[in-house]
Order: sequence, then structure tokens, then C-alpha cells
Amino acid sequence: MAKTKIDQTMQIIRDQIANKSLIVGSRLPSVRQFAIRLNCSVSTVVEAYARLVAEGVLESRLGSGYYVLGKTETFAFVETEVQYQREVDPLWISRQSLDAKSGVLKPGCGWLPSNWMPEQSIRKALKQVAKSENILLTDYATPHGHLELRQLIARKKEALDLKTQLNQIFITDSATQSIDLIFRHLLQAGDVILIDDPCYFNFRALIQAHHLKAVPIPFTDNGPDAEKFEQALNLKPKIYLTNSGIHNPTGTSISLQTVYQISKLVEQANILIVEDEIFSDFEYTPAPRYAALAGLKHVIQIGSFTKTLSAAVRCGYIIAESKLIDQLIDLRIATNFSNSHLNAEIVYQALIDGSYPKHLDWLKKQLNKAMNDTIQKLAVLDIHPLNVPTAGIFLWCKLPIGIQAAELSKLCLKSDVILAPGNSFSQAENAGEFMRFNVAQCIDKKVFDVLEQAIQQLRLSV
Amino acid sequence: MAKTKIDQTMQIIRDQIANKSLIVGSRLPSVRQFAIRLNCSVSTVVEAYARLVAEGVLESRLGSGYYVLGKTETFAFVETEVQYQREVDPLWISRQSLDAKSGVLKPGCGWLPSNWMPEQSIRKALKQVAKSENILLTDYATPHGHLELRQLIARKKEALDLKTQLNQIFITDSATQSIDLIFRHLLQAGDVILIDDPCYFNFRALIQAHHLKAVPIPFTDNGPDAEKFEQALNLKPKIYLTNSGIHNPTGTSISLQTVYQISKLVEQANILIVEDEIFSDFEYTPAPRYAALAGLKHVIQIGSFTKTLSAAVRCGYIIAESKLIDQLIDLRIATNFSNSHLNAEIVYQALIDGSYPKHLDWLKKQLNKAMNDTIQKLAVLDIHPLNVPTAGIFLWCKLPIGIQAAELSKLCLKSDVILAPGNSFSQAENAGEFMRFNVAQCIDKKVFDVLEQAIQQLRLSV
Repeated sequence: MAKTKIDQTMQIIRDQIANKSLIVGSRLPSVRQFAIRLNCSVSTVVEAYARLVAEGVLESRLGSGYYVLGKTETFAFVETEVQYQREVDPLWISRQSLDAKSGVLKPGCGWLPSNWMPEQSIRKALKQVAKSENILLTDYATPHGHLELRQLIARKKEALDLKTQLNQIFITDSATQSIDLIFRHLLQAGDVILIDDPCYFNFRALIQAHHLKAVPIPFTDNGPDAEKFEQALNLKPKIYLTNSGIHNPTGTSISLQTVYQISKLVEQANILIVEDEIFSDFEYTPAPRYAALAGLKHVIQIGSFTKTLSAAVRCGYIIAESKLIDQLIDLRIATNFSNSHLNAEIVYQALIDGSYPKHLDWLKKQLNKAMNDTIQKLAVLDIHPLNVPTAGIFLWCKLPIGIQAAELSKLCLKSDVILAPGNSFSQAENAGEFMRFNVAQCIDKKVFDVLEQAIQQLRLSV
Repeated sequence: MAKTKIDQTMQIIRDQIANKSLIVGSRLPSVRQFAIRLNCSVSTVVEAYARLVAEGVLESRLGSGYYVLGKTETFAFVETEVQYQREVDPLWISRQSLDAKSGVLKPGCGWLPSNWMPEQSIRKALKQVAKSENILLTDYATPHGHLELRQLIARKKEALDLKTQLNQIFITDSATQSIDLIFRHLLQAGDVILIDDPCYFNFRALIQAHHLKAVPIPFTDNGPDAEKFEQALNLKPKIYLTNSGIHNPTGTSISLQTVYQISKLVEQANILIVEDEIFSDFEYTPAPRYAALAGLKHVIQIGSFTKTLSAAVRCGYIIAESKLIDQLIDLRIATNFSNSHLNAEIVYQALIDGSYPKHLDWLKKQLNKAMNDTIQKLAVLDIHPLNVPTAGIFLWCKLPIGIQAAELSKLCLKSDVILAPGNSFSQAENAGEFMRFNVAQCIDKKVFDVLEQAIQQLRLSV
């Protein structure tokens, strides 16, 4: 399809409206006349007119032709420049990263560069889905969501020692939405919740949105500090929210012993663990899961396919007892009506595509190399990881003495480098001395040049 | 791609695992050996092995071959039969309709049959999107969402006399999510909200989820009763939630005079209207909009593309003052992180496809005929619309004297016909005498046969 010619024709018409050669209500030349005048094919004009009707610029009157409907002023839209002079809060990194223009470097963001993602699997899935039956393309999802995807998730979970029934699995739009639904259903404003310190900044944003009281539990090399966890149970928390598999931001894999200790404490206190295993596909050897030990009576597992498949195709899941799932479905209908069945099908097709496991293998090797490289380059700047993770994308690093993460982040932002300051992940007194780095976003040498200059500048200004 | 042969090969392997000819940990034959044994091509076995790896059934060990990873018990999943013996509540129709198996008739649901939807535009859009650049396929959306789609919405709004800036438009996943975000941000439990009586049942489910106090305003042939509206302002409501364009369930188009009266009242009382124009693309002549009169200072407009494009591709929008949009973006990041950029692109591509306006024309004619036919067939059963709508898919009908909508609905459900009883739309005393019919879902004669038999049965049982 001669896209350029159609676009040119559309622009000529828009220009004529703008310069008043065509005024509102006036009739356009016939398709044939206009094609002769522009020396293009009739089909080009037909398509250009049809698209301008779709855009609301022209109107088609049956048997009479095309008329100017739209006004001219809005054709030259300019996206308003958005400036976030906001303080570093739990949403700071998200807004900066999501708003970033092309060319901006994002070692602070929580996802892979788009050329590290399995685009071929997504393209293949889209083409496959384009051939699906009508109902998949245009109808709502069933309440529990895509059946085959739930079967696939159940099989994957079995490999992690978690047995599930299909009505214990619920397809959502994202891991974040999964947690949000769980919180809305189970918690009330003022309820106490245990979180890791540090933890994923958006957990903190979610907790703010729900007006909960968060009690931070120090996160050690083995997982949450079991002693502090036990003490915190006196505050009558209802839920412990954590990452299993690979922890965000520390990259730590929890030890089996800690999973066992925490599981026992949770059973005794009769509270729930919400374990988010969104980074699970980065693991070489899967870390133990709370759900496998304590079971679905005490654990709700959530996840998504965002990190290793696509963030553009929104699809996540909740695994919980079937009765709870049924209540969450009611809440989802009331507040979101349905999830995207089409997205679930795209994810399913991409996951069963034989090339996906191969892509994961490639990805893990890339990440391993990127992690080693990043550690070395940061060491030159006297920035060192607290632990060296065995897998994943994150390094949780101590900054040089005297350098504050929030100040460093604001300074680097001026040079188009978006960082993830520790204050976003923790309210602990020393959190400002830490920074999270996404090793997959640290390939460009500029990241380290900008960091070096900014650190020097901060040292001079003291 | 020989899908059947690959599937057969996968099934053979699964069966061998199930009957223990292949036990966990055992090595599979080489691809070549297995191909010879099954008398199929090597590529078929390669793809079958790869997919079973993707499913977590097999494991690939570098340089060593494929091994059985999964266990056998979960391969024969059976979807648990879900029975909803629930009472008629605001979620009754949604759960029944979304859970309906194929073959079930759904005159009570709020959407078109899938063969009335513009599937060709969706297929074309999917193929187009499959060729997009990486970033669109795998990355998050920007905070405000898809730029070109916002431009398109702005142009369409201008045709309805509403001028907007691009930072006043926010792409969400659905109209329901749009309202949910607005409520979460602007309202607290216990706040008073005005709604139409009757109104869309999911508005009532949303209001329940937010623990709001809803004050119903009788909805007349011209729109909300302005006198009752004015009286209700004494209760200090914060928001009036309504459908503009075509009202759900009555199908009524609001008059300009009513829009003017209500707009004045809203300005005086300094409250907000949330107008949902989800059915706007069914209109022949657009009804006046509150936003066009009272402006974005007093009106938030929301909508989606679910009803005329696809319910599987989740995409909606909010139009409001830019400051409010900015706050809603923060809330959306905290609770959903991102909307589906891919879905927004599919919607955009489908909307600018020249065939979409033609499909809408065809659809309106189909609906016009279906509405006339349904009115006639219902009249035979002594079921009559309160008003005859000028456009859209709904008829709000009075049942024969003595027949209760909830009883009739439960009875018809046994014959696989899902209805929309009046009690779901209103708590008014006489709401049980009404039923909403979706004329596009009333093509099958069985709808009227089942209705007739059920009405007879109810009459006999009195």
C-alpha cells in the first residue's frame, strides 16, 4: 500500500482546509477529478478520503460526495512539554523513565532495552492471532481468563513444586494490577502490611494509594530478617508483600531456610504472603517459593510476562485459593470489567513458540556478561554492589562516601541519564547512600561518563 | 506450519510420560531417531520438543539433548464447572454473560455478537502492528498514552464541539477503568454521588466497590429529571455519573435543554459530571454533550472503543483538565503501572483504516432493522419499550403485568438464555417490572420462544 502517497494526499487536503481554500461545509472534488489533478491513482484518493472521514476531518454524504467537517485549528497539535520538578518519591523513577524521550539513557528503569526482547516471538504471535476466529478478536475474556494460558502457567508452576487447579489461576493485566486487586479486596485503609527494606518502589506507591501502614523488614543476603519479621508480627499485619525468585532491588535469591522460617511464622500468625515472582524467567536455578512450602492457604502468588516477553502486551496472573479468586473476579468486573483476551492470546502464542526458551538462554548469557561488565565499570567509580546477584538485571550498590543518591540522580537527569536513587526503595536513614542499576541498560559508556562527572561536581560543591 | 503433526507428536510424548514409558529425568530419543520412528520430518520433532520445553514438560541440556522435566498428573486439566446460584445483584448479568458457553443466547448482555464487529479492521491492524518497530511491541506506553490516538480523539471531540489539548487526554484500558481511577482519586468511602435511575448495572457495582452513597435521579425521555436533580444537590454530592450520547439501559438521547439545565445546576453547585459516552459511535446525529457546554472545569468525559471496534482489545480514555490528568497518571502507575501500548496501536490502526466508517454505516443499518424487528416480536409477548430509542442497541421494556424480571431471568437461564433484569439497573420499587434487551442479540427466534414459555410457566405458577 502506497502509504506515502496517501499521506501526501491527506496532507494536501488538510493544508487546503488550513489555508481556507476549502472551508467547513464545502464539497471536495470527486475522487476521479482529484486523482487527475494530483496525478495519482483513484484508489489513493479513495483511501485518503476514507481515512480523513475516520479522523473526523471529512464527512461522507451518501450519493453526494465528501464534505469538510473538521475545523483547522487542531491539526497542528504540539505535545506539551512535561517537566517533573517533583521530589524523589516512590513514583519519581517511573514517571521519569516512562516519559523519557528517545536518546535518554535509563540505567534506573526496571526493564530491558527493547532490542533485548523477543520481538520475533511477538511478531509471530501477532500474525498468528490475526488469523484467529472472530470471537477472540472482538469479544470479552471469560472471567478467569485465557484457558490455555492458565494451563501453561499451571504446568510451569508444577515444575516449581506448586500444584494448582485451573480455577486457582486468574489472568489479569499486570503484576501491579494483581496486587492492587488483592489489596482492595483484603485490606482497608490503616491496615498494617510487612514489606522488605529495601523493596520495589512501586510497592510503596501502591501502599500509599491504599493508605496502609507499611512495616519495613530488613532484607539480608538470605531474604527477610526472620527475627525482625517475628517481632513485627506483634503489630498484627495482614499481609507480607515480597518478591520471590529474584528480589527487587537487591537481586538477591532467598534461601530455602529463610523460606521455611518465614513460612512457619506466617502459618502461626495466620497471615498471608503475597509473593511477586515477576523476575522468575531470569533465574538459572529457581529459588524456593513460599507458595510451594506454605501452600495457597497462606500464599498468593502473582506474576506477569512483562520482563522477558513484552511490557506492551499487558498480561499478568494471580494464583490463590479458588474462593478468593472468585471474589477477586467480581471486583475486577466492577473496576475493570475484563482483561484483554487478545493480549493473553498473544502472550500464550509467544510462550509456546519454540524460539522463546532459546531467547531466554541467550538473554541470560547477555545479562551475565552485562552484570560482570557493569560491576567492573562501577568499581572504577568506587560504586560497589552490596551482594553480587546470581541472576537477573539489578545491582543494588553503595555509592562513594558523601554522595547522596537523590542529588546524584537529579544532576544526571540534566545529562539525560535516569537513575534509581535508594530513597525510592526505602525510607531507612542510609537508603540515600544506595543506587539500583539495571545492568542491561548500562551498555552505553555514557552512563559511566555522566556518573563520573556528576560525582566530581557533587564533591566540589561540598 | 504443520500444526496438526506437531500437536500429534507433542501428544505422543505426553502420553509416554503419562504411561511411564518416559519417566521424569529420562532422556528423549534424538530428534532424528524420533522422526524416523514416527515417520515424520525432523523439523516437526524439533518444533514439538521446543514447545514442550516452553511448556515446562521437557528440559533442554546443552550438547546433551532433551530430558523429561514435568510430571504427568497435571496434563489432563479439566476446567471446573462454575455455577452461579447467586442472587440478582449488579454483577449478575456480567458474570452470567462473560461465563456463557457457546450456544448460549445473550439478549441481556451489553455488546454486539462477534460477527457484527469489524473483524477485518482488527485483523488488518494486527498484521500492520506485527511490522512495527521493536519499541512498540515490547516497551511500556508513555504516561499519557499513545500520541496519535490522542490526536485522533481530539479531532473527533472537536466535531462534537469540545476543544481539547493533548495533555487533557489520557489513554486507559477501558471506560470502567477510567471511572474507577476518577473515583479512587476524587472520592472517599461515604461520599454522595448522583446516578441515573435506571443506570448501567456496572456503575452500581463500581459504587459498591468504592462504598459510596448513590442518590438515584429518575431518568426521563429527555434525560435526568432536572427538578429532582436540583433537590438532590442538598445532599452535597461530589459527582454526577451518567451516559451521554445514548443512555444505558433506556437507549434515550438526552435533549439539549436538559444538558443546559443540568450544566447550570452543576456549575452553581460546583460539582463534577463524569459523562461516559461509550455508545457514541452508534449515534446517527450526536446528542449534545455536557463537556461541550459546561467545559472541562465541570465535566470529565470518558469512553472506549469496546462497543464498535473490539472488546478483546482493551482501550479507553479520560478527557479532563490537565492537572487532574497528571494526578490520575500517578494513580494509574501505582495501581496498574502502564496501559497496553500495543492495544492502543491496534485501536488506532483499526480506526484510521478507511473501512471502519463504512462498517459503522453498515452496523447502524443492521441495528435499525434489529430494533424494529425486536420491538415487533416483543409486542406479541406483551413486552413494550418505555421509549423507542433513535439509535443504539438497547430497548428498556415493561414486562407483562405480574411478571417479575428476576424470576423470568432465572427461569430463562435454565434454557440457556441470559437476560438483563431491571433490578440490576435500579433499586426503585417497580424496577423488577422492566427488562433490558440488546436488539443485536435478539436475532435468534429461540430468544422469543424461551421468553414465551417462561412467561406462561410463571403465569401458571401464580
